[in-house]
Amino acid sequence: MAFEHKIQKKVEFSHTDMAGIMHFSNFFRFMEAVEHDFFRSFDKSIVGTRDDAGNHLGWPRVNCECKFFYPLRFEEEIDLHLVVREMRSSSIRYEVIFSRMVEDEYRELARGGITIVHVGVDPETGQMKARELPAWVQESISVAPDGYKVKKNE
Amino acid sequence: MAFEHKIQKKVEFSHTDMAGIMHFSNFFRFMEAVEHDFFRSFDKSIVGTRDDAGNHLGWPRVNCECKFFYPLRFEEEIDLHLVVREMRSSSIRYEVIFSRMVEDEYRELARGGITIVHVGVDPETGQMKARELPAWVQESISVAPDGYKVKKNE
Amino acid sequence: MAFEHKIQKKVEFSHTDMAGIMHFSNFFRFMEAVEHDFFRSFDKSIVGTRDDAGNHLGWPRVNCECKFFYPLRFEEEIDLHLVVREMRSSSIRYEVIFSRMVEDEYRELARGGITIVHVGVDPETGQMKARELPAWVQESISVAPDGYKVKKNE
Amino acid sequence: MAFEHKIQKKVEFSHTDMAGIMHFSNFFRFMEAVEHDFFRSFDKSIVGTRDDAGNHLGWPRVNCECKFFYPLRFEEEIDLHLVVREMRSSSIRYEVIFSRMVEDEYRELARGGITIVHVGVDPETGQMKARELPAWVQESISVAPDGYKVKKNE
Repeated sequence: MAFEHKIQKKVEFSHTDMAGIMHFSNFFRFMEAVEHDFFRSFDKSIVGTRDDAGNHLGWPRVNCECKFFYPLRFEEEIDLHLVVREMRSSSIRYEVIFSRMVEDEYRELARGGITIVHVGVDPETGQMKARELPAWVQESISVAPDGYKVKKNE
Repeated sequence: MAFEHKIQKKVEFSHTDMAGIMHFSNFFRFMEAVEHDFFRSFDKSIVGTRDDAGNHLGWPRVNCECKFFYPLRFEEEIDLHLVVREMRSSSIRYEVIFSRMVEDEYRELARGGITIVHVGVDPETGQMKARELPAWVQESISVAPDGYKVKKNE
Repeated sequence: MAFEHKIQKKVEFSHTDMAGIMHFSNFFRFMEAVEHDFFRSFDKSIVGTRDDAGNHLGWPRVNCECKFFYPLRFEEEIDLHLVVREMRSSSIRYEVIFSRMVEDEYRELARGGITIVHVGVDPETGQMKARELPAWVQESISVAPDGYKVKKNE
Repeated sequence: MAFEHKIQKKVEFSHTDMAGIMHFSNFFRFMEAVEHDFFRSFDKSIVGTRDDAGNHLGWPRVNCECKFFYPLRFEEEIDLHLVVREMRSSSIRYEVIFSRMVEDEYRELARGGITIVHVGVDPETGQMKARELPAWVQESISVAPDGYKVKKNE
């Protein structure tokens, strides 16, 4: 059972804004990128599945938030560390911690979270309905232990 | 004293993703757009000011969040309603309510919030330091009354 | 018969990059925005139509380009002027001129172009096939006269 | 002397649009990412340098274009191959070829180009002036041989 996942992403020029730092909306794109890579680590994709009735299965976001401690700058290589914090019948809530080494310190730059819900989408009407978490999720993903903290890989 | 501001924005094609709806990161770009228009309503810009010591004055984001109730779709015209919820010595916290008419109902589609802080940025080092809210803010902007709720313009 | 269309767009903070100017990729998003507004001026949308066989009809881009003469900056209000330059059996090529008043001069800031093609998309396979321009396009849109030049509205 | 550079990029969810494919503006962000990685391969950054007079040195885009042959889809891994096509006293023009293996074929999906110019930016006025290519560029980068074609790495 996995409760965490880690990737690195470099801040690109098109992520920055005229304040010279990564635009805050891009933290959410980074978070989503770890989530999708977490799915791929189980050979699963966030899109492209249908149920027997032909409904598309998807994972819309219910809520999200982020706290910003330090700015991210062009060409910095950022560690993104996803930790599963809560699972309900049809939703998953995870945190993403943004960090990098600054001199001798493994500095936390930002911390965000997203709650995603598993839904079926009627292909004709576009209506969404919550669904139970897929079997593979229930078998492969679990919530992190209470008080679990991320650390720099050695 | 103003505690709210309202603009409309249309969902563009480049705001959508392959799920056929506005990508969730763009809600934060919409929120920021109302904020900047709120500043412009006082003939002020979020950027471009310096103090006497040559420090750039800016408004980085400290935290933000959003709850999504209904998807936003291409070409929908959305009401964005900013409401100031809290002011401290150097920060402002505001909410943005996303709404539109759906049949006879003025439907709330999403609700988010951002806390911004007034800082001076050393032009040489890029270091940021919190600053008191500018005088014009203290004279022109106030917190909304307790329990204040947005309504459709008649 | 219409061969041109005009809208204004303001440069937003999220359009800028760390060079302090609008990121060049956003010129293409601006061009697309005029195109879609041109379609809306005929009560048509670039998406959402199907033919009798259930194929989705769409308008993918075949090629595009842009020349940049002056940078666009935050909060500048830009005139976007679309001019139809060529129509073939299934494609339309248009230019977009970016301008604004700078002191007494109506200055051209950038000039780009996009060729779009009308296609049917098989809903099962995602395969695209070129289609004749829709009847409404043939009846409502024409190519600009040779040498047609945009001017500031008086 | 180097005249080419290659990276891979995965199409992310936030790169897609409601047509289910990568939005065309993102091809330009991908091209820029190879360019910046090309610079980094010489331990150089596109930003952050100043001349003796305190002017910032930068590389604005003069023009760019792209031809689209096949759509790019979510989670596809794309080869981006930059080839230097022209160098003048203060500008560089390069092409980027987008490719990936589709069954047994190394398929070209898109081909674009960007002309960048070396400039000094006056920190007070923001005025840009063309500059000679830096010495390191003249010593390290050259134009690709006539008719040079990219191939899949073996």
